[in-house]
Amino acid sequence: MSRTNYILEPIGVVRSELTRLENAPMQGAEGGLDAWLELAPQAEPGLSGIKPGDELIVLTWLHLAQRDMLQVHPRGDLTRPLIGVFATRSPDRPNPIGLHRVTVLDVAEQKLRVAPLEAIDGTPIVDIKPVLARSTSDQ
Amino acid sequence: MSRTNYILEPIGVVRSELTRLENAPMQGAEGGLDAWLELAPQAEPGLSGIKPGDELIVLTWLHLAQRDMLQVHPRGDLTRPLIGVFATRSPDRPNPIGLHRVTVLDVAEQKLRVAPLEAIDGTPIVDIKPVLARSTSDQ
Repeated sequence: MSRTNYILEPIGVVRSELTRLENAPMQGAEGGLDAWLELAPQAEPGLSGIKPGDELIVLTWLHLAQRDMLQVHPRGDLTRPLIGVFATRSPDRPNPIGLHRVTVLDVAEQKLRVAPLEAIDGTPIVDIKPVLARSTSDQ
Repeated sequence: MSRTNYILEPIGVVRSELTRLENAPMQGAEGGLDAWLELAPQAEPGLSGIKPGDELIVLTWLHLAQRDMLQVHPRGDLTRPLIGVFATRSPDRPNPIGLHRVTVLDVAEQKLRVAPLEAIDGTPIVDIKPVLARSTSDQ
């Protein structure tokens, strides 16, 4: 396989009242908050066409994750046996990309208000995609 | 926002009979094939717990994409107006991460047989995640 690495250039950052990792829920649906996706000025043209009510998939870079983890106890529960990280949503994984399904609440210049989001304030955003209508193909 | 960039280290590669971009369907459900996800030896422990029938989200790096595109004609249809790439699934986008929902058909050492996958042979794999049971939180 290729030994090539690739460079992610964040397109923006999460702005949220969640500032501490230990207060963040494990999934958006488990207590995620309303948050702003604040895009870099140069990425702003990429938002054209997004409107309130749209369902989006936001990909983030979970910058506080441990990248050397290949097996974890699911949901941090030490009573459960170790399992491969690719069978879990653990943030600790070789490429800690967070995947968040959100609804757009508001659109402002360079910013989207979305919910629910469990990522903490300052989390880099690397991509935004629409949820496709056909659930088998997109999610 | 942060100016920090992040380095993706592929965990494996797609092995598929699809070898030419012009033959690849736009979405897996539009004619995606069975394909192998071939993991690097060092990533193999991360597969533990994945079994046939599991629904996974595979994240790839669309290595042939153009990263300087912020607006596109949806589905390459020039009769449709330009729209922001973040409102589309165009592979051409600042961070060309492909998102593919697949079913596991077979598990072999260091490899998963999955379908349907529209990514071409040689596409780097950067992450694998389970689809969560609660559709609002995971997809």
